[in-house]
Amino acid sequence: MTDNTAASRPAEKVISSAVIKRLPRYYRYLGDLLKNGVVRISSKELSQRMNVTASQIRQDLNNFGGFGQQGYGYNVEYLYQEMGKILGLDQVNNIIIVGAGNLGQALANNQDFDTNGFRIIGLFDVNPKLIGMTVKGVEVYDIDQLEEFINSHDVKIAALTLPKAKASAIAEKLVELGIKALWNFAPVDYDLPEDVLVENVHLSESIMTLSYRIHSKDQ
Amino acid sequence: MTDNTAASRPAEKVISSAVIKRLPRYYRYLGDLLKNGVVRISSKELSQRMNVTASQIRQDLNNFGGFGQQGYGYNVEYLYQEMGKILGLDQVNNIIIVGAGNLGQALANNQDFDTNGFRIIGLFDVNPKLIGMTVKGVEVYDIDQLEEFINSHDVKIAALTLPKAKASAIAEKLVELGIKALWNFAPVDYDLPEDVLVENVHLSESIMTLSYRIHSKDQ
Repeated sequence: MTDNTAASRPAEKVISSAVIKRLPRYYRYLGDLLKNGVVRISSKELSQRMNVTASQIRQDLNNFGGFGQQGYGYNVEYLYQEMGKILGLDQVNNIIIVGAGNLGQALANNQDFDTNGFRIIGLFDVNPKLIGMTVKGVEVYDIDQLEEFINSHDVKIAALTLPKAKASAIAEKLVELGIKALWNFAPVDYDLPEDVLVENVHLSESIMTLSYRIHSKDQ
Repeated sequence: MTDNTAASRPAEKVISSAVIKRLPRYYRYLGDLLKNGVVRISSKELSQRMNVTASQIRQDLNNFGGFGQQGYGYNVEYLYQEMGKILGLDQVNNIIIVGAGNLGQALANNQDFDTNGFRIIGLFDVNPKLIGMTVKGVEVYDIDQLEEFINSHDVKIAALTLPKAKASAIAEKLVELGIKALWNFAPVDYDLPEDVLVENVHLSESIMTLSYRIHSKDQ
């Protein structure tokens, strides 16, 4: 086994966002292989399953030290664990959800998050009908309790599942309260300090991309 | 005004997926400008608002014929309408949602879709508690009615918001029934005919990407 683990990779190395976006997919495939009792896999076989080239897999993983052995391939469990460390999934990542409507509740109910080290620890809303209810055991709090909650919990990520009109003000407030990572579902681009990470899920843009592909195919 | 509209662009021209992914964002910004009464805008000013370079905007739009006039800039309403046509939003795009849980309901409740020419015309589920209820006036049908419904409606897109275990079988059934575009939220890659379009929204992969960025920043 190589000792080029994630921890030993040079800090200055910049990994392209295209590579980063592929990592969770590797992690998902490796998790499925592990569940099916597969102990080791060649880059060729992994590439056929994932429908990417073997050379891309090797290149992608070489960014983090390689993990493979000539003639052996990859040890599935080891690679799965190392990928998990690279993705920060070996730690508990506490998430709060601001906006407890259907979408916020859908995130709170998503079982995939649990199994991957993410823990929803609170939902927040302005709607008195939602405040006090629980979603999968997690309470919906009044948005006025946001500051107190953040100050007394280790919140890594805030998901924004609230209407566009309120999104910017809440995002700014969250950043003021020390949140450094936003998982944003509102169709808004924020003007926030550079060290704040924003990962967007723009549903309208996704469905429009699909619509474009449908209609350009017809022409 | 130029007459290089979308309809006249050469059919064989291949637009890169990076450009396609940026189109909905242009459309969103133009819609906001229009709402605010802005009549025309230079590529420079648009670029500052959107935080991309003016040259990228010109290059992106030139894929579709340009739309700008030297010294005038872009007519906001015209460009908004033309972008809408390119994205296929000048037609009604009927959507069915398979999986009427929180996520399916969240999609059905999303008002952005309405305003952009998408129309949710039915939800489907296996859960007797959900069947027969309505979400924003749209009925939840028994999954057994899928075939009859698709045969009697003009369904352009099927959104898959159902558990992973059932996703592949349902996707194959939808394709058998003639659906050519899937908006997929299940953490699954499908093995479908090449002419079927699949647009993925993988929520677990999105949050893992954010987690990666948080933890790689800390190192």
